[in-house]
Amino acid sequence: MKLWDKGFSTDKKIDHFTVGNDRQLDLLLGKYDVQASKAHAKMLGNIGILTTKETLDVILALDEIAITIDNDEFTIEDTFEDMHSKIEFLLVQKLGDTGKKIHTARSRNDQVLVAVHLYLKEEINEIKVQVKELFNLLMSNAEAYKDILIPGYTHLQVAMPSSFGLWFSAYAESLIDDVYFLNAAFKVVDQNPLGSAAGYGSSFNINRTFTTKELDFTTMKYNVVAAQMSRGKSEKSTAFAVSSIAATLAKMSMDICLYMSQNFNFISFPDELTTGSSIMPHKKNPDVFELIRGKCNVLQGLPQQLALLTTNLPSGYHRDLQLSKELLVPALQELKSCLEMAVFTLRDIKINTNILNDSKYNYLFSVDTLNKLVQDGMPFRDAYKKIGMEIQKGHFVPDKNVHHTHEGSIGNLCLEDIQHKMELALKL
Amino acid sequence: MKLWDKGFSTDKKIDHFTVGNDRQLDLLLGKYDVQASKAHAKMLGNIGILTTKETLDVILALDEIAITIDNDEFTIEDTFEDMHSKIEFLLVQKLGDTGKKIHTARSRNDQVLVAVHLYLKEEINEIKVQVKELFNLLMSNAEAYKDILIPGYTHLQVAMPSSFGLWFSAYAESLIDDVYFLNAAFKVVDQNPLGSAAGYGSSFNINRTFTTKELDFTTMKYNVVAAQMSRGKSEKSTAFAVSSIAATLAKMSMDICLYMSQNFNFISFPDELTTGSSIMPHKKNPDVFELIRGKCNVLQGLPQQLALLTTNLPSGYHRDLQLSKELLVPALQELKSCLEMAVFTLRDIKINTNILNDSKYNYLFSVDTLNKLVQDGMPFRDAYKKIGMEIQKGHFVPDKNVHHTHEGSIGNLCLEDIQHKMELALKL
Amino acid sequence: MKLWDKGFSTDKKIDHFTVGNDRQLDLLLGKYDVQASKAHAKMLGNIGILTTKETLDVILALDEIAITIDNDEFTIEDTFEDMHSKIEFLLVQKLGDTGKKIHTARSRNDQVLVAVHLYLKEEINEIKVQVKELFNLLMSNAEAYKDILIPGYTHLQVAMPSSFGLWFSAYAESLIDDVYFLNAAFKVVDQNPLGSAAGYGSSFNINRTFTTKELDFTTMKYNVVAAQMSRGKSEKSTAFAVSSIAATLAKMSMDICLYMSQNFNFISFPDELTTGSSIMPHKKNPDVFELIRGKCNVLQGLPQQLALLTTNLPSGYHRDLQLSKELLVPALQELKSCLEMAVFTLRDIKINTNILNDSKYNYLFSVDTLNKLVQDGMPFRDAYKKIGMEIQKGHFVPDKNVHHTHEGSIGNLCLEDIQHKMELALKL
Amino acid sequence: MKLWDKGFSTDKKIDHFTVGNDRQLDLLLGKYDVQASKAHAKMLGNIGILTTKETLDVILALDEIAITIDNDEFTIEDTFEDMHSKIEFLLVQKLGDTGKKIHTARSRNDQVLVAVHLYLKEEINEIKVQVKELFNLLMSNAEAYKDILIPGYTHLQVAMPSSFGLWFSAYAESLIDDVYFLNAAFKVVDQNPLGSAAGYGSSFNINRTFTTKELDFTTMKYNVVAAQMSRGKSEKSTAFAVSSIAATLAKMSMDICLYMSQNFNFISFPDELTTGSSIMPHKKNPDVFELIRGKCNVLQGLPQQLALLTTNLPSGYHRDLQLSKELLVPALQELKSCLEMAVFTLRDIKINTNILNDSKYNYLFSVDTLNKLVQDGMPFRDAYKKIGMEIQKGHFVPDKNVHHTHEGSIGNLCLEDIQHKMELALKL
Repeated sequence: MKLWDKGFSTDKKIDHFTVGNDRQLDLLLGKYDVQASKAHAKMLGNIGILTTKETLDVILALDEIAITIDNDEFTIEDTFEDMHSKIEFLLVQKLGDTGKKIHTARSRNDQVLVAVHLYLKEEINEIKVQVKELFNLLMSNAEAYKDILIPGYTHLQVAMPSSFGLWFSAYAESLIDDVYFLNAAFKVVDQNPLGSAAGYGSSFNINRTFTTKELDFTTMKYNVVAAQMSRGKSEKSTAFAVSSIAATLAKMSMDICLYMSQNFNFISFPDELTTGSSIMPHKKNPDVFELIRGKCNVLQGLPQQLALLTTNLPSGYHRDLQLSKELLVPALQELKSCLEMAVFTLRDIKINTNILNDSKYNYLFSVDTLNKLVQDGMPFRDAYKKIGMEIQKGHFVPDKNVHHTHEGSIGNLCLEDIQHKMELALKL
Repeated sequence: MKLWDKGFSTDKKIDHFTVGNDRQLDLLLGKYDVQASKAHAKMLGNIGILTTKETLDVILALDEIAITIDNDEFTIEDTFEDMHSKIEFLLVQKLGDTGKKIHTARSRNDQVLVAVHLYLKEEINEIKVQVKELFNLLMSNAEAYKDILIPGYTHLQVAMPSSFGLWFSAYAESLIDDVYFLNAAFKVVDQNPLGSAAGYGSSFNINRTFTTKELDFTTMKYNVVAAQMSRGKSEKSTAFAVSSIAATLAKMSMDICLYMSQNFNFISFPDELTTGSSIMPHKKNPDVFELIRGKCNVLQGLPQQLALLTTNLPSGYHRDLQLSKELLVPALQELKSCLEMAVFTLRDIKINTNILNDSKYNYLFSVDTLNKLVQDGMPFRDAYKKIGMEIQKGHFVPDKNVHHTHEGSIGNLCLEDIQHKMELALKL
Repeated sequence: MKLWDKGFSTDKKIDHFTVGNDRQLDLLLGKYDVQASKAHAKMLGNIGILTTKETLDVILALDEIAITIDNDEFTIEDTFEDMHSKIEFLLVQKLGDTGKKIHTARSRNDQVLVAVHLYLKEEINEIKVQVKELFNLLMSNAEAYKDILIPGYTHLQVAMPSSFGLWFSAYAESLIDDVYFLNAAFKVVDQNPLGSAAGYGSSFNINRTFTTKELDFTTMKYNVVAAQMSRGKSEKSTAFAVSSIAATLAKMSMDICLYMSQNFNFISFPDELTTGSSIMPHKKNPDVFELIRGKCNVLQGLPQQLALLTTNLPSGYHRDLQLSKELLVPALQELKSCLEMAVFTLRDIKINTNILNDSKYNYLFSVDTLNKLVQDGMPFRDAYKKIGMEIQKGHFVPDKNVHHTHEGSIGNLCLEDIQHKMELALKL
Repeated sequence: MKLWDKGFSTDKKIDHFTVGNDRQLDLLLGKYDVQASKAHAKMLGNIGILTTKETLDVILALDEIAITIDNDEFTIEDTFEDMHSKIEFLLVQKLGDTGKKIHTARSRNDQVLVAVHLYLKEEINEIKVQVKELFNLLMSNAEAYKDILIPGYTHLQVAMPSSFGLWFSAYAESLIDDVYFLNAAFKVVDQNPLGSAAGYGSSFNINRTFTTKELDFTTMKYNVVAAQMSRGKSEKSTAFAVSSIAATLAKMSMDICLYMSQNFNFISFPDELTTGSSIMPHKKNPDVFELIRGKCNVLQGLPQQLALLTTNLPSGYHRDLQLSKELLVPALQELKSCLEMAVFTLRDIKINTNILNDSKYNYLFSVDTLNKLVQDGMPFRDAYKKIGMEIQKGHFVPDKNVHHTHEGSIGNLCLEDIQHKMELALKL
């Protein structure tokens, strides 16, 4: 059964190609379609297209479907093109003519639109929770290991003293920027598109303010053409946020993989979190972080894939847009699993504490020594030459006590300020 | 003169390759470096590293440099690696030892960082102004042409009645979503990175709160490693916003190019805004919009270019990051010129008013006729069959009066609500 | 059972995250692993590590496994990390110690490498066959409809006469360029990597020339580090070819979607190959071509995804590379299904024959009229002015007979030359 | 003067926006336009449109222009839209009516097309020469340092012995794969598009076989629509090759930056090829390779930028395509400068010879020891356990003599075979 069925039997090959794995993806979106259908039915009752009894019957029937979805008992057989067809079929089966009326004043286009918007709102919120969880863990690790020094690199050359306190909380603070993009994406999808029908509105006197409130949208996408254009744009907006978080996770994972190398040997993980080789017992492969890195690097390309999909499509619906689901849904699952694994494994990170004992790190402290000269009144460039000379002659002895006290430095991590900034960001 | 000069003459070839067109880009960033240097000098005065007199001298000297920059008289000769070297040279030339002291407690890394942040803040604000200007024009065009109907397409097939009112204000409302990303990018760059030095802070007792206020940053990037990591991330965050606006402009341009084709013939532009061919006087090539489309489609790839540049770089500065300027600066100029040209040309758009007289658009009205039946009580699917039958038998006569009155539809564009939403967005 | 098992029970969560859908993808690669294992076993026999009997036993056992794979009876249970573990398990189960010996002088790294190379060789060849099939269809359509004129557009403005003969064979000839990239990709993957072990070779005196011949590779990737680096590079090379074909298919599909619009009305398809709406019987949605377009546009991004995955990974194996399978395998399936559907539907394309009767296409012929003047001796620029004047005064009468006879023009399509060029390309 | 001038003065703003930096890019393409114009003139002489005298006059005049181009004396004033307008202006100025006739039977579209094809052919050939030069250097370095061992990594964990011989020649052999893509790109651009006029051919009886031979194209792009479609496709095809080489260079540069870190300390460069800090004399920043890495990583995105530019443009010329020059021309310059710098600096690479003396690399040799057991008859898995046990108990003593003798291994680099493969590739 297809909504647009014309009596001609469409070739099965076509069916297979055009439906793709829509049915599978729709199982994830089903609950949002039911939610939106309920709001639509109530609105139809509100404007008199459904009677009070009809409205109640439809809502009860939809609630029953919602339960089957929650219980993973909802199925979309091959005879249905998508969840929308199946749900309408169930309604008609149960309620006859009343069931048919639910499709009044809407089209599959705005059904899909509103379901995707509701889905993305929930996904964005879930991701926010996970980002906050990772943030918390990084912050408590920063606090726990704030006194353990590591070399800081520029150009991959050892340069200045750093610390695990700095390293952990750097990624924590960096996640706040990602939250700004989650917020922006949320604002984009938190606008009710329902009522745009096929993208040009309808002659029914529908009440879009009603469904906007009912579905807990902050506002609506007023213009129906703009609502239709939010297909593709909502997904890309969410993809920007995904890409932003993914970049942070990937960079942190690159650090971790490097720091686990025998050539750095800064950190390690318990055996059950790494893979290895019994022939080389020192070998602890950081597969989890290599995969977070790899998956997140691919996720960084999500906005580009959506751009390629939508570029130069004139306004109005095109079937191409259906493919945005195939790109976005697995990407969101992937990002969430990466966040989950990062939290799961970083809880058990093992920190090496004597890293700076190695003499190759001695020169890390030359700048601080120089600064002491400057603080005692010598112009910077002159002090620079003096220390340089000492080092070249082999007279330089590092003072490994670090006295960095300004805001955000090794001795003054400002964790509370960072915490506060994150909380502000999450409230936006 | 290079800050890191070791007495060895670095090969000129290397110099040419590594400096690239940095000097040229730096001319744009110079004013922000001076601004940040002044704040840094005041702070050094505040913490006693510069005396009051030294502070005043440095500020006066920087103000003089600022004037040469404003007057386009500032130059960066080949003997200087970048603007930072040149400005320090001028200070030392004028103030001797005092001039040398300005470099205390900072490094070129955080000088570049803070200049880029200040530059991006200003650019984002300028783009916001331009987006608002385009928004205003689209909104007034929507109001002016709200009664002119055009076909609405789905799958590029004529489908439902639409209007120029809908079309113009759709792109206006769509721009609001882009503003959310401008806001997010602004939040990312509105965090003072100054004081992070080479990316690991310093042993000077600097006052970063002081420079944060002085430079009018809302907050600081506390963690110095996070501040360093904002190189690349600030640029990519801005690029997300650029990409978002570019997608909106490109899509609108695609519509315009299509609508100017003889096969649509919905709109045109005065001869001086098109290019043509005297041999085919009907031919009006929409070069401006083809180029907006093309440039904006390329701009959509900006986040990806920055992702490729920064992917899998471990934390800490790498020279690769210098290239982010080369990608971002021209892109921002390009976007601004596209916004400017869109406003410049759309002011003079000519609207064809009798588009729907063509019989190929008759079926646009079939759905409204069907809806009337439904409004009179017939179930949707039954009305659907009845009208279909009429059309197939050739009995269908369109009623071309459109009665769409719900929020956001042809007869009720909600322009004030959209205006209000934009104003809220700009205030965030 | 994991090959690297250390006696520690790795957390299941890790297992799920790291193995991903490798087992499913491996079912496709299994036959190539068996093929390579057979070659490896024969080589081990050849150099005396396996006795003749052992070699025969292993080959027989592998042949049995191959049959289960061919019959879709091969399974990879959750207790096995991948196909390699499962196949080795089966060999040990059947042959005891002899089964264990197959892993001598190789590692999973080069097992995967060689299986991927063999897989890609076969896929590229299959795609070549499909490209040739589409080429043939386009060429025969070009021949069949060579006399039907259509407008040719520049800037989407009607410009010069074109024809279905030109249009069909343009895409045919364009496919030849894609074949050059299939050939290049084939050359990249047609180099035996087996023997590189973990990426650094081994101390066994293996005979890589033997396995190269046995597996029908044209040459070997000599350097074992280069062989290891071909992971990622082989995939990206293939992706370039995929991207090239996808761009051709997507562009053709865009034309088709446009030409099916009522505003062009050049072509149509039988009802069973389109989707529609009974309420608007003229509406024939080109879903198949919208999906080919959308899928192929996403496929154009495949090289970029692989670039993001592999960028800045130092030499040597990283687990990230495992993800290249997840990107490439479905992409190849997608491309093949798009090629199949293009052939399936284009066979039944319906051509409108009276397109140029519409008066909006009259000016198409102005240039030919001008050229006649030039051929009679008038300088080009002067003739240009004369005709322009006639048109402006409304005196221009088109002569719709097209006399284009030069190579590659409407009247001289050079189909045989194009055919010949394709055949040469396929032989490279 | 614009070729399409209609007497209306086009707004200067439009002019600035639409012409962009075309004039500057055209200076590079000018010589190819002259070359193609000469061939076109000869052909016009051949088919009788130009007399023998006219043909000679035009050729002489074009030769004079060619000399001004060679001497960097050719200029394109703001009054000319592009080089084509300027060259035609010069011809008319010198030859009057004869000069006007050169534009017979062609249009700017195929003028640009053929110039771009000729330009790309030469660029591809130049890049091939540079790739070969880098290949030669890597090969001779491989030979020179073939006995110096380094650790081989998997997962960034020290794993197996490798060598500088392997490392250098791995990148050399990898470059051969890139040559396959240069060859494919060359085949795409080595097809004469001249004669396609505006993309639909013309009614002149031109002789395209004549210009094909005259311009030394191996074949022609027969179909004129296909010839027009090669705009964008030629550039993207070249971009695939650029991207392929760039990936190889970037990966090698990443290795180099890592290997120069104090944590690896495998290689270094003379002071004049690095940048540094007098305060940390051990610090040698690998700026050249960071910039090669960064530039090449951005270059990897070139095909994607061109895909974004061209995606979903229907067939026929669009002004967007003009922008492909802006993307490709600087990219080719960038790639060539990266190749040049790689050769320039790698000549002076300094190799550390005692790398494996560090005890953290001892376990590199465990697998070889194991293999010896296997070679003496122990099943692989059993030997694996035995050595593992020894290592865990601290009994393991590495034998640092590496006996890898198979094709492509440390002791048998097969440099001649690799050399031969490259030479074959360059001949294709």
